[in-house]
This record gives sequence, structure tokens and C-alpha cells, in this order.
Amino acid sequence: MIHGKTTLIPHIGYPTESFKAPMIYNPWFERQGIDAAVIPMGIKPDDYATVFPALFRMTNIRGALITMPHKVATVELVDELTPAARIAGACNAVLRRDDGTLVGDQFDGEGFVRGIRRKGCRLEGARAIVSGSGGVGSAIAASLAAAGVAELALFDARETAARALAQRLAAHYPALRVSIGSADPAGFDVVVNATPLGMQPADPLPFDVARIAPGAMVGEVVMKQEYTPLLQAALARGCKVQVGADMLFEMIPPYLEFFGYGTATPDALREVAQLRY
Amino acid sequence: MIHGKTTLIPHIGYPTESFKAPMIYNPWFERQGIDAAVIPMGIKPDDYATVFPALFRMTNIRGALITMPHKVATVELVDELTPAARIAGACNAVLRRDDGTLVGDQFDGEGFVRGIRRKGCRLEGARAIVSGSGGVGSAIAASLAAAGVAELALFDARETAARALAQRLAAHYPALRVSIGSADPAGFDVVVNATPLGMQPADPLPFDVARIAPGAMVGEVVMKQEYTPLLQAALARGCKVQVGADMLFEMIPPYLEFFGYGTATPDALREVAQLRY
Repeated sequence: MIHGKTTLIPHIGYPTESFKAPMIYNPWFERQGIDAAVIPMGIKPDDYATVFPALFRMTNIRGALITMPHKVATVELVDELTPAARIAGACNAVLRRDDGTLVGDQFDGEGFVRGIRRKGCRLEGARAIVSGSGGVGSAIAASLAAAGVAELALFDARETAARALAQRLAAHYPALRVSIGSADPAGFDVVVNATPLGMQPADPLPFDVARIAPGAMVGEVVMKQEYTPLLQAALARGCKVQVGADMLFEMIPPYLEFFGYGTATPDALREVAQLRY
Repeated sequence: MIHGKTTLIPHIGYPTESFKAPMIYNPWFERQGIDAAVIPMGIKPDDYATVFPALFRMTNIRGALITMPHKVATVELVDELTPAARIAGACNAVLRRDDGTLVGDQFDGEGFVRGIRRKGCRLEGARAIVSGSGGVGSAIAASLAAAGVAELALFDARETAARALAQRLAAHYPALRVSIGSADPAGFDVVVNATPLGMQPADPLPFDVARIAPGAMVGEVVMKQEYTPLLQAALARGCKVQVGADMLFEMIPPYLEFFGYGTATPDALREVAQLRY
């Protein structure tokens, strides 16, 4: 129940219709007796640079969750970035400190990696391919690199985005083998869709599933439905899969810690969540 | 349960701690199956002129409730004013039309007048005194004038505020007798506190209650407690009283109509409200 003393955590993106976070955080806050609420706030890209700083003038907010399409733009709007956000070139979390300064962090990649590790995926020395070099793709690539993969293939229809990410990764992980320009998943242990493909029924698959090795881990960021066409095809081929919502649940514990609201396990969060696909 | 398709109605003021509206509107919306939520948003006066327009760039809001200390400043920030808002010199409601323009309205006065009428108070030809010529006091004075009172005494420690209100009233109601400069309630049928006096335990009473006529209607805008010291003293003197929350409940039906969410009766709203004094 929201009242005048409730601390708001805006969930900023556009459009807001498919947002899931309020249905996870808010029941959790209620169960834990934490007087806070995640509130969707839609901002169009053209308005973002002016509306974002204005929102942080509100007296009753602690920070914000940032989602598409604003994760990359947020980097320029905060006072300080954590290393994870700097390497990813994207923020999905902003905290307002007591002195009013804003610090940006990034938990997409950590959520993704925690999730596939929990499913038994060994990342040290592995070969991974990530399609999509936007905010979430960059974050996942950065976290895969930090987790010790040996090789990372990046694909994005906008080749400059893939190249820029490759350069940031090379600067931080000189031993990592990074390639760009191909979406062929053959031979990779970890195959990641970090594009919006799968949001619309008519979307093509982001990978040629017939070329994914059976036994590979196929992960997804799209949460429009639990098992996207990519994941359905990957399961049929004998792959392990990670649904989009797993990344979401796995990144909430670090978010809670970041905002100073204790922590949680993904299972406990899942138990209280009221999600509808 | 707030989710990505929920329409927000920011409740804008500062500080937000004593806001009551979310605990009335939100249970009502839930019971009626209206997918909307009133969300407190605190904005300091110095930030208001920049943050207010930014909030209305959010894609998932329909309008806003405006409360202290921003009701007067809002007049300059909207594209259009209803007659009630123009005479009051204050807005407590803003609607964003489909074309993006903002229209400001004012329901404080209507709520106050509906409430005392429901208690049997006859206003045609009556004598009324209103202490406080800020946003809410101006609105109540305007609605009392519209309701047909014959005489209106205005008092405000800032005499220029009372004088400006008197001039606006005189322009719209040439037959109305308006006076300023005295807080003496002797001889008045309707006695209204529209100042913040009563918010703090050490506050003096806004009127010398010993000079209020027994049988007069004494109304209050302070909602810090149900029966403020003024109302307790007025009851002891044999006056009829109206508590601050009555004005709040009586103004919600016109608010709901303004936002396009049907209507309600004050009793039905009261039944679902989860208010704590």
C-alpha cells in the first residue's frame, strides 16, 4: 500500500507496457516490511536527457531501475559509474546518494551469468556468442568476460556497435579472443540472444538453431513469453536453456543490495512474484 | 497491484509524508477495476518550475493531484485554466489532454462547500469568514461566493494575499460584500480555517473560539488529526463542524469525473479508504 512516506524507485523505460519488475519487487517489499515501491515511468528517448535529471529532483525517491531504450544514454547522465557499468557502456541501476550525486551500476550481465552458472554452465575457458551489442548485450558480454570465457563472438546488425563493444572488451581483457561480424553459433558453448528478436510473432530467429551444438547453453533476454521461439527450438535440439525471466530474478539480489534493502534468493523472489506472461 | 500498463496519477507536493489521497484513491481504483494509481511525488518549491513540466513528459500518466505548496504556482505552468481555478488563483488538479496540453482545475472549494451543504448548512445569503488566502483558502472563498453567500471576510497574515483575493472575488461577484483585515469570527454563520495552524501541537488557534456564535458551522482544512484543537473547541461551544478529511472525500467525485474515471459517493469512498490519523 503506497502512502506518503513510501520511498519510490522509478522503473524508467519506454514503452512501459511489458515491464515485469514491479510485480516482483513490490510483493517482495510488502512481505519484508520494506516501505518502498517500484513505479513504472515511461520516458521517450527524445525527452530522456531533460526528464531523467528532473525525476531525480523528487524528494521521495532512492534510485531507479533503468531499462530499454535508456541504458546506454544513462551513462552520460550520472555523476559516477561502477566498473561494470563502464565496461558495459550501459546502466540499469541508479542510486542517489545522500549528497544528491548519482551513481550508475549495471546488473544485467551479472544476472545472466549467475543464472547460467546456477544451471551448471562452466564458463572458465568456454566459447560464447552474443547477438546484440546494445545495453543488455554489452553487459552480458562484459560479465562473460569477467567470468573467464576464452572466446567471445559479437554480432550486431549495426556493426559499429559490435566493434565498439569489442574494443572496450579488448581494453579490459587483453587475453580474451574477441571476434565480430558473424551470427553463426556453430561450435559455441554459450549462445545468447540479447536482441529484441522474439518480441513480435513475425520476428526471425536470431540464430540458425540447426547449427547450435546440442548440449550448448542457449540464453535469452526476451521476456514477452517464457519460452521464446528460439528457446523452443533450442530445447528441441537438446540444448540447455535460460529464459529471460531467470536473468531478471538473478539480478534482483544485487539490485536490493545496491539500494540498501538487504538481499534475497531468486527462489524466494519467485515465490512472491506475481508475473503474467 | 501496479504493473506496466497502470496509468499513474502523480500526487505532487512537498513534503509528502502526510499525504492521504493514495490511501483513498488506490483502494477505490482497485475495487472498481480501474487500472490507475495515485503516486506521491515530492518536489521542493525551488525545483517545481522545471520538474513539473518534465513529469508531464512521462508517457504513462493521465494527470496529477496538486497539493501544498504548489497549488498557486501551478497556475502559471498549465496551458488552460477552468473558471474555478482562475478565480481561486490556484490549481489542485491537472489533466493532460490527448494533444499534450495541460488544463488546470480546482476542487478544494467545491469539496468544502459540498461537505457543509451535506451537513445542512444553508449558504444563500449567509455570512462567512475564511482565515488563510493561499491556494486552499482562495478556492474555498471562491466556492462560497459561487454558492451565494452575501458577505465574505478574508484574513491572512500576509495582507497582500487577502487583498488580491478580495479583488478577484469583487471582479467576479460584484454584489458580494468582501472585507479584509480582521480574524474576528463574531456574527459569522460559516467560519473556515484554511491556514496550516493546527498542524503543529504548539500552534495557536486560528480564531478566538469564544467569539464564534454557537450554531455556526466551523470548517477545517488541516488533516493532521481528525478533530483539530479548533474543531474540539468549536464542538465544545456548540458549533457544527466539518473535519479536514470531509473536504477531501467530497472533492474526490469531481476529481474522478475530471480524469474520466466515472464518479463515486463520499460514503463509498470512505468505506474503502485506508486512512490513518
